Formats: sequence, C-alpha cells, structure tokens
Amino acid sequence: MEWHEIRDPQDPELDRLAARYRLHPLHIEDCRHGNQNAKVEESHGYLFTVLKQVSLKSDGSLFIDDLDIFLGRDFVITVEPVDCPAIRQLLEAAHKAASSPRGDQIFYRIADGTVDSYLPILDRFSEGIDELEDQVLDRPVPDALARIFETKRSLILLRRVLVNTRDVIGHLQRTESDLIHRDLSPFLRDVYDHVARNLDLVEMQRDLLSGSLDIYLSSVANKTNQVVKVLTVLSTIALPALVISSIYGMNIKGLPWIDSPNASAIVGSLMLAATVVLLALLRFFRWL
Amino acid sequence: MEWHEIRDPQDPELDRLAARYRLHPLHIEDCRHGNQNAKVEESHGYLFTVLKQVSLKSDGSLFIDDLDIFLGRDFVITVEPVDCPAIRQLLEAAHKAASSPRGDQIFYRIADGTVDSYLPILDRFSEGIDELEDQVLDRPVPDALARIFETKRSLILLRRVLVNTRDVIGHLQRTESDLIHRDLSPFLRDVYDHVARNLDLVEMQRDLLSGSLDIYLSSVANKTNQVVKVLTVLSTIALPALVISSIYGMNIKGLPWIDSPNASAIVGSLMLAATVVLLALLRFFRWL
Amino acid sequence: MEWHEIRDPQDPELDRLAARYRLHPLHIEDCRHGNQNAKVEESHGYLFTVLKQVSLKSDGSLFIDDLDIFLGRDFVITVEPVDCPAIRQLLEAAHKAASSPRGDQIFYRIADGTVDSYLPILDRFSEGIDELEDQVLDRPVPDALARIFETKRSLILLRRVLVNTRDVIGHLQRTESDLIHRDLSPFLRDVYDHVARNLDLVEMQRDLLSGSLDIYLSSVANKTNQVVKVLTVLSTIALPALVISSIYGMNIKGLPWIDSPNASAIVGSLMLAATVVLLALLRFFRWL
Amino acid sequence: MEWHEIRDPQDPELDRLAARYRLHPLHIEDCRHGNQNAKVEESHGYLFTVLKQVSLKSDGSLFIDDLDIFLGRDFVITVEPVDCPAIRQLLEAAHKAASSPRGDQIFYRIADGTVDSYLPILDRFSEGIDELEDQVLDRPVPDALARIFETKRSLILLRRVLVNTRDVIGHLQRTESDLIHRDLSPFLRDVYDHVARNLDLVEMQRDLLSGSLDIYLSSVANKTNQVVKVLTVLSTIALPALVISSIYGMNIKGLPWIDSPNASAIVGSLMLAATVVLLALLRFFRWL
Amino acid sequence: MEWHEIRDPQDPELDRLAARYRLHPLHIEDCRHGNQNAKVEESHGYLFTVLKQVSLKSDGSLFIDDLDIFLGRDFVITVEPVDCPAIRQLLEAAHKAASSPRGDQIFYRIADGTVDSYLPILDRFSEGIDELEDQVLDRPVPDALARIFETKRSLILLRRVLVNTRDVIGHLQRTESDLIHRDLSPFLRDVYDHVARNLDLVEMQRDLLSGSLDIYLSSVANKTNQVVKVLTVLSTIALPALVISSIYGMNIKGLPWIDSPNASAIVGSLMLAATVVLLALLRFFRWL
Repeated sequence: MEWHEIRDPQDPELDRLAARYRLHPLHIEDCRHGNQNAKVEESHGYLFTVLKQVSLKSDGSLFIDDLDIFLGRDFVITVEPVDCPAIRQLLEAAHKAASSPRGDQIFYRIADGTVDSYLPILDRFSEGIDELEDQVLDRPVPDALARIFETKRSLILLRRVLVNTRDVIGHLQRTESDLIHRDLSPFLRDVYDHVARNLDLVEMQRDLLSGSLDIYLSSVANKTNQVVKVLTVLSTIALPALVISSIYGMNIKGLPWIDSPNASAIVGSLMLAATVVLLALLRFFRWL
Repeated sequence: MEWHEIRDPQDPELDRLAARYRLHPLHIEDCRHGNQNAKVEESHGYLFTVLKQVSLKSDGSLFIDDLDIFLGRDFVITVEPVDCPAIRQLLEAAHKAASSPRGDQIFYRIADGTVDSYLPILDRFSEGIDELEDQVLDRPVPDALARIFETKRSLILLRRVLVNTRDVIGHLQRTESDLIHRDLSPFLRDVYDHVARNLDLVEMQRDLLSGSLDIYLSSVANKTNQVVKVLTVLSTIALPALVISSIYGMNIKGLPWIDSPNASAIVGSLMLAATVVLLALLRFFRWL
Repeated sequence: MEWHEIRDPQDPELDRLAARYRLHPLHIEDCRHGNQNAKVEESHGYLFTVLKQVSLKSDGSLFIDDLDIFLGRDFVITVEPVDCPAIRQLLEAAHKAASSPRGDQIFYRIADGTVDSYLPILDRFSEGIDELEDQVLDRPVPDALARIFETKRSLILLRRVLVNTRDVIGHLQRTESDLIHRDLSPFLRDVYDHVARNLDLVEMQRDLLSGSLDIYLSSVANKTNQVVKVLTVLSTIALPALVISSIYGMNIKGLPWIDSPNASAIVGSLMLAATVVLLALLRFFRWL
Repeated sequence: MEWHEIRDPQDPELDRLAARYRLHPLHIEDCRHGNQNAKVEESHGYLFTVLKQVSLKSDGSLFIDDLDIFLGRDFVITVEPVDCPAIRQLLEAAHKAASSPRGDQIFYRIADGTVDSYLPILDRFSEGIDELEDQVLDRPVPDALARIFETKRSLILLRRVLVNTRDVIGHLQRTESDLIHRDLSPFLRDVYDHVARNLDLVEMQRDLLSGSLDIYLSSVANKTNQVVKVLTVLSTIALPALVISSIYGMNIKGLPWIDSPNASAIVGSLMLAATVVLLALLRFFRWL
Repeated sequence: MEWHEIRDPQDPELDRLAARYRLHPLHIEDCRHGNQNAKVEESHGYLFTVLKQVSLKSDGSLFIDDLDIFLGRDFVITVEPVDCPAIRQLLEAAHKAASSPRGDQIFYRIADGTVDSYLPILDRFSEGIDELEDQVLDRPVPDALARIFETKRSLILLRRVLVNTRDVIGHLQRTESDLIHRDLSPFLRDVYDHVARNLDLVEMQRDLLSGSLDIYLSSVANKTNQVVKVLTVLSTIALPALVISSIYGMNIKGLPWIDSPNASAIVGSLMLAATVVLLALLRFFRWL
C-alpha cells in the first residue's frame, strides 16, 4: 500500500506514476488542467475521483480547488494544487490518522474531511442571509442588493459542487468495484448523508435569499408609498393656505371681508378650516 | 422484549447497550450529536430510526428535537433529548398502550404519535396565513412582511422534516426486514398517508403564503396609486386658482376686468370654471 | 350481489357490516372520521375506495365531501355523508341504471358520475377567470385582487382532489385484483381520460390566474404612471405662469415692461411661450 | 383495403361501420362528442386515434378541431368535423398521394400533414412575440399587455395539443400492434422529431413571452421614474424662483435691496443662483 | 476507410453516395433541409448524426449551423453548409490529425471539436452578464433591459443545442452498435462531461441573468424612491416659505408684525423655523 502525494499537478513524477500504474491519459490531463467537476470514474484497476475543496476568500466570495485521487489495489495517488493550505492540512490529518490503513480508508478520510469543510462555509452564508434579511426589512439600500446577488452567485456555485459530490459518494456507495470494501459502506452512507444535508441547507438558503429580494422590493415600494404620502399631506396642508392667500393678494376690488378690521383673523380661520376639512375628507374616505 | 428508555443522549448506559446489542458506532454518534435528518438505516440485527419532534415556541418559531429508536429482534431502545416534555408524554402514552407488545408495535405507536403531533402545528400556520392574507389586503404594513417571511422560514423547515419522515415510513413499509411484521403494513400505510397529507398541506400553505406576498406588493402599489391620485386631484383643484390669483396679484396695468366693480366675482368664476373644466377633461380622457 | 347504502357514517349498521365482511378497522375509522384524500386500498377480499364529491357554495368557495366505497366479491357498501344532496342524487342515478349489475359496474357508474360532476365547477372557474382578466386589464381594483386569491385557493384544493382521484382510477386500471373485470378496462380508461383532462384544465387555469395577477400589477403600475404624467403636465403648464406672475407681483422696481401699457399682453405672451417651450422640450426629448 | 371518409360525425353511416367492424361504443361517442385530447387507443382489431387540427382565426386566436382515425387490418375510417377546410384539404392530399397504399401509410400521411400544419402557426406566434418585445421596450401600452396574455393563452392551448400528439406518435412508434408495419418506424420517428421540435419552440416562446411581461413591467417602472424626474427637475427650477418672488411680494418693510434701483437685477440673479446651486447639489450627490 | 466530404448539401454527389451506401431518404432530406436538432439515428449499416456548430455574429447574436455525419463500417460522410469557415477549419484539423484512423475516431475528433467550440461563446456570455450586472446596479437604463433579453434569447437557443448534443453523445456512449469501438468509450465520456459542464454553465448564467432583471427592477424602484424623496424634501423646504410669504402678500389689514420695522427679520425667522420644524418632524417619525 503506497500513498503518493503529488503537490504540484505539473510535477513530472505524475507522468512516471501514470506509466507505472497505467493511468488513462485523459485522467492525467484532468489533473493537469484542473477546474473539473467533482466526479468519479472507474478504470481498469483503479478509481479516479475529483473532489472539490471550497474556501471563503476574505471578500466573502468562494475559492474552489480540485483534489484528484487515484485509488488502486495497492496504491493511492493524491494530486493537490500548488498553493492550497486547506487541502494540505486535510491530507496531513489523513496521514496522521492513517498509520497503515487500506486505500479505501484513506479515501474515506479525505472525502469525509472535504465534506466536513463545507459546513462552516454554509454557516457563514446562513448568518449573512439572516443579517441581510433584517437589513432589507429595515433599510433597503442598494448595497444590500449587491450583497444579495453576490451570495446568490456563491450559492449557485456551491450547489453545483455539492450536487456533483453527492453523486460521487452515491456512486461509490453503489459501486461493485472491489476497491471499496463492504465494511466501508456505512461510513460512505454517513458522508452521503452529510452532503445531502448540506445540499438541503443550500436549497433552503436559496429560498430564503430569494425571499430577501422580495422583501427588498416590497420595502422599497413601501418607503416610496410613505414618502408620497408625506408629500401629499404637505400639499394638503399648504395648498388651501396658498390659494386663499393668493386670492387676497390680488389687486382687485370686492373681495369679501377685505376691508374688515378683523380680515386677517377671518382669513386665517378660513385657511385653517379649509385644511382641516380637506384632511378630514382624506381620512374619511381612507384615501391616505 | 425489553424497552430501554435513555433519557439523556450522554447517558453512559447507551454505551453499555451499544456493546451489548452491537450497535454501530456511527449510530451512537448520531444519537449523541443530535440534529440529524429523519432517517432509517438497516443494520445487522436492528433498525436505527431518527424521528423529529416539532413544537411551536411561544414566539411562533419552530423547535425541533431528535428522537432516536433502535428496533431489534428482542429489544427497543429509545433515546430522547434531556428536556422535551412533548417526547416524554408521547413515550409514556406508548408505554401505557403497550402492555407487552411486539417491538414493531411500539415503534408504530411512537411514529404515529410523532406524525399526529404535526397536525396542530399545521393548523396554527393555516390560521396565521389566513389572518395575514386578510391583513395585507387591507393594510399592507411592513410588520406583515416580516411575519410572512418568518412563516415562510418555518414552512421550509417543517417541509424538510416531513419529506424525510415520509421517506422513513415509506422505506419501512417496503422493507423486507423481518423486524417489521406483515400485519403492521396497513398501519404503516396509514401513517404514511398522514405524513403525505401533511406534506400536501405544507405545499398548499407555501403556495398561499407566496400569494400573500403578491397581495402585499399589489396592495402597496395600489395604495401608492391612490395617494398619487389624491395629490394630482388636489393639484388640479389648486393650480388654476393659484395661477389666476397670482396673475391678478401682478403690479402691472391692463389686466382684464381689473377695474370692474365685479372683478372679484368674475375672477372667482374664472377660477371655478378652470378647475371644473380641468377635472372634466381628466375624467373624460380617463386619465385619472 | 348486495348493495348496502350507509347514509350516515356514524350508523352502527356499518359496524355490523364490518364484522360480517371483515373490513379493516382503519378503513371504518376513515369512513367515520371523513376528510380523507381520495385513495384506493386493496385488502383481503375487498377494495376500499374514497372518492371526493365537490360542490360550489353560494359564495363561490368549494365544499368537499367524502364518498367511501367498499367493493367486495358479492357486496358493495357505500358510505355517504349525512347531508349531501349531490352524492344522494348520484347514488340514486346509479341505482336506477343498475338493475342487477356486477359490483364493479356499480363502482364504475359512481366514479364516472363523481368525475363528471367536476366539469361544471371547472367551467364556472373558467368563466370567472375570463371575467377577472378583463376586469383587471380595465380597472385594477383591490376587490379583484381578493377574488384572484380566492380562486387560487379553490384551484389548489381542486387540484389536490383531481390528482388523487386520477391516481385512484389509474391504480384500478392497472390492478390485478379480480374484483375489477377485464371488460371494464376501456371504461376506466375513459374515466381516467376525463380526470386527466380536468387536471389539464386546472393547470391551465392556474397559469391564466397567475397571469391575471401579473396583469393586475402591470395595470396598477400603468395607472400610476399615467396619473404621475398628468400631475407633471399640470405642473409644467402651471409653474411658468406662477413663476412669472409671482415675479411681477414683487414690490421692487426695474422689472422690464412693467410700466408699458401693454404689460399684461406682453407678460401673458411670456407665460404662454414659456409653457409651450417647456411642453415642446418634454415631447422632443420624449421625457413624458 | 377500404378507406371510409365520414364527413359529419353525426352521419348514421358511422353506426353501420361501427357495427360492421365492431368498434367500441366509447370510441363512437368520442367521435360524436368531439373536443377530445389527442390520443391513441388499441382495441381488438383496430387502433383508434384522435388528432387535433389547429387553425388561426382572423383575430389571432386558435381554432382547434378533432380528426378521428380508425385504423384496422383492412380498413381506415376517418371522421372529420363538418366545416373544416384545412382537414378536408389534408385528407384530399392524402388521397391523391395514396393510390392503393396500406392503411398505416395512409395514417402516416395524415399524421405527418397534421403535424406539418402546426409550424406556420408557430411562426406566426414567433413573429408576434418579436413585435411585442420591441413594442413593450419602446412604448409599454396596456394594449400590449392584453396581447401578451392572449398569446400566452394560445400557447398554453397549443402546448397541450402538442404534448398529447407527441405521446400519440411516441406510443405508435413503440407499439407492438401488427397494424403498424416495421418499415414505417423511421417515418414515425421523423414525425415524432417534428412534434418534439415544435414543442421545444412553444416552450421557448413561452419563455420569451414571460420575458416580454418582465420588460413591460420594467419599462413602465422606468417611464414612471423618468416622469417623476421631470417633475422634480421642474420643481427644482420653479421653487426657488417662487419662494424668492413671493418674499419680495410681501407687504412688509425691511427686505434687503428692495429700494435699490437694481433690485430686479439683484433678485433675478438671486433666483438664478438658487436654482443653479440646487441643481448642482442634486447632481453632485447623484440624487437625480 | 473512405471519408467523403460534401461541402454543399445540394451537391448531387450526395445522391450518388446515398445510392451507393443505401442511406435512408429521410436522412438525405435532413441534410438538404438543414435546421435540424442535434440528433443521432441508428440505421442499417450506419449511424446518422447531426451536430450543431455555434458562432457569435458581430452583433452578439448566435449563428447556428448543421454538420451532418454518416458513420458506416468503411466510410464517413460529412455534409457541411456552404459558407461556414468554423466547420471547415474543424474538419481540416480533424483531417490533419487523422492520418488513416478508424471512422469512429474521426467522428470523435469532430464531436470533440464541436463541443470545444461552445466554451469561448459561453465565456463571452459570462463576461457580458457580469458587465450587465454591474451596469444595472449602477445605472438601470432601458438599453440594459434590451441586452438582458437578447442574452436570454441566446441562452435559450444555446441550451437547446447543448441538451440535444448531450443526448447524442450519451446515446453513442451507451449504444451497442459495433460502429463505435469500446476503447472510444472513455473519450466519449470526456466529451459528454464537457457538454454537461457547458450545460451547467448555461443554467448558471440563466439564473444569474434572471437575477440581473431583478436587480434592474429593484434599482429602478430605488431610483424612483430617491427622486420622490428629493421632491418631497424640496417641497418641505419651499412650502412653509411660500405659505408665509403669500400670507404677507395679502392686501388685508391686521397681519401681525406687519408694521414692525423688523418685520422682514421676524418673518424670515418664521419661515426658517417652520421649515426646520417640519424637517425635524419628518426625520423624527422616520417618514423620509
């Protein structure tokens, strides 16, 4: 049982291993080229698996790396990207735990570690969505809109990784290849359950996120409604006063009460009465 | 036929039972860790089932607990959370009903009780949604928006529990394990029907809830429309009067009728006529 | 061939029949409790079917009743709700048509009658939706909104009944039970086709209804747009006149043409010109 | 090989044929009643097929007719509606092409002709949707809204016809009835491909149409935004002038520059400056 | 092994080949007529495949061409459209690579090349969508709306091509025809993976694009909200001043402070105070 750790996909060592274990050229190409979907392919004498390591960059966007694993009867080859501390750490942990285990046990440890690493990311998204929801209910600013769509984009990416990973584990559970021993089956089912639960979470978060967008739009509509109401009330108060005072500003004769010494009191009351009647009408007909 | 009731997942008694009945370590871990999806797993000599107990917290949000059941040939082990009166009550009821029944009958009673406990919660949601619908039609306030999304979140959670529980019961109905006797089959189908009907209800409520959101948005748009109409009518009434009185307030010569003794009557009629003509135009062209 | 008609689910006669024909207690419970989904269950020696009778209440909402049928080798038992004239009529019609037919022919007549009774209800909905569509295009009032959602709710309920009924008939078509004779098969397929077509209609109506809501929102947006346009045109006409007349109302010296005898003509032309230029600008830049 | 053409479903000749070829009463009823879904049913000794002929009425709405075909070992019976020139033409074309062919070849020619007749209708819809899209982008008038929903309704109807027709052809391709010879198989696959492609087109058009509605709503929102902007700019220009001129229209003492001979120039500059500063502020803070 | 390259579907050479290799007339018709869906059909002695070549026109819309391939035991026939440099280039590359290979290897090279040519187009769309997203967040102009819907239309078309191509490759992978050798299987799986990944990308882009539309609508609503706020603030500032100055412009007696020498200071402060109090009220009640 040999475990070959290739720490750079361009390492020519990979070619030597390919020749020695008769690995398919398309698989070597997949390792070199990277950026594959998570997948598993059964070849003569070995299983080729691509797993995806997901990390959060400091700006909250996702960073996704490939981890390629060849699992043969008496060998395991892991091909990791050059600069990914998360994968390094994962493989080292698998190394420590595995004194001299079987190849499929090593594979299980790596797959389990990879899947476990998705949960903290989902938790971060979950918190982010809760915050967003509160924020858009309270203050629907365009900045929140941008964050909603960034999160949406990340969830779309993450969902794709999870769906493919679930299919990989599901396939390995059902495989009849003798490279995976029967006693590993409950453990693979456990990993499968974890991925499935993560996927449930992602679906739920997508649902909630699309809800956030609805809140956003509703809140903006609400705020506009409120502002227009304020404008209308202001106009309702001001317009009668303006009209009446304009009328008494005309340079014509015969305006009522114009020569009365109480003119200003009368006219003032008129303005007040007009405004009050108007506001009462609006309220009575529930127009506002 | 022994029934072991573990009332605290951390109880070391669980380890002793695990050793005695050779329970799989991953299942013990599931009990200890909690927060599993509802599921059933067939192992050598026993069935391991996780059911979910759902309660409503006083603020209307959901509280979800795990109830783990090991069903073996001559034993039943139930593992319940430390502080969940609903599960305690359910198990006691099962105890009373079961003088010395078979293990699968105990299991049926517990599953039946769990599923029955979902219905009152669904009824509460149903009432809440009816109230919400009426409220948003009448007064679309932001508070209703927040309640719509809380309910949505709860329904998403509940739906997940129900889907998984349905799959558990469906699996048990079809299982060929001899731990479930054939004569239990119509009873399991009955439980299955109940879960399926609950799931139908949840889907219906989600549909109605998304309708509530549509009503909300439509109502807000409607109210805004109405307020703007009020503003426009106000302006239509005030603007002709303002323009005309402003014109007669100018300090220039040659304004018509300005020296007439009936000036104020003439100008007043002018204002009235302008407003009436304007309103008639708006109505005639159905612009308002 | 005996046909037992139980006209009240609480009738103790049902218990006697249950004992005589060895009916499963869960089925008797379903009859007594009511409110089941449409379903068919094969038991030892008989088929238990629940069909749903749908009627329209005077306020347009749906009223749904259970009709339970036990079909045995030499007996038919129908259990109807206490106060449902539609089901009574249906059973009497089946009675008249059936001089001394086989049990499965009685069953077919009842199922056929039940399914036929859905069509007039669908037609009523169809008309209602057409009316709604015209109304919301013309005058999007909140009342239409309420009717849209009542209809939506009814369609959700009806759809559930239809889906379950379709599954019942589909199951009976494929069943290998010798309680259903082979020569009934084209008749059951006919019933199946009718349910399927009804279901198509419901889906279509849901589609059209959700379209109505879109029209509603679009119409409201449109009306608001129109009202705001009116307000803007009004302001465009009034503001230049107001500004110019206010300026000539100032108590300061040196305003142009103020002492000219044609002042009012000049200023009037000024106002008119300003308004015309403004309106022309708006039209030219297509801002309105 | 006899081909019976029934040109009126009520023709008593149909009953004679039914007796002679032992056609199932339910099929005769389907012919007489019309308005069936496209379907195929295998009976003893013959295949009963319903195809749907679709035409466009002059107002752009769909007109859908039934064409019923009985295909037996040595006979073909076609039942066409009384007044449908399109079906008449189709059958005559099939007549000319078929000197003395087999029954399944006649059937193929009819089915092929029916399916071919859907394409021009789809092309018309396609053009209509393109026009609508351009129109709503440019001028979102309510009339376009009505046309969007008419088209939507037609597409829903057409989709149903196509789905059912596809299932009919698919069933005939897979049937093991010896009424359809093996060498017809590539031809039926060709018809199937055509229906499937038409169905793809309908789905695409539904997608584009729902896009048109989104454009409509967005365009209306945009126009409203623009109109409100115009109103705000107008107010921004007019209000400073109004306020300043109103102030100088007050009958009080001590207003600055009021006695200056350059008063009007000063005040005019003041107004201009206020407006410019206000507009600059709006632009600077990107509030407009 | 002969490779016949037909460079014009109307070339009579195609008829000679059809006669020589006994190609089905429907397949020749498909070549001549063009505009087929991507498909594969197994005939006696050969496989007929239609692939779709996609190019971007200079205005960003898609241009889609057919490439037809007949793969027989000892021949390959490719039928290309008259004027499509992309297909020409692809076939020449396949020619160079293939000194004297098997027919299925030639087919693989062509299919691989076709599928590879989709990726740059998807990349262009991806960039376009990113740009659109940024643009609509910042400035939701109607032009962006038009671009969103053009891209949507292209994605719908592209998706159809990809779905059909995936089915073609999937069918060839599973086929039991001996025209495809077993050792080609991993290569076809590789092509299948590429198409599937492209399809994933298209789905993702559709998701993001529909997000862009939501941003658009939200941004417009937001801008309208902002403009209305500006209008309301302007009115709030102007109206008190207007009302007060209008009042002091009335030609009546008894207005307070009107004869005071500090009248203008007093009235000015009054105006200022009214505006400040109003703005403070709006802020305090969070109405703005």
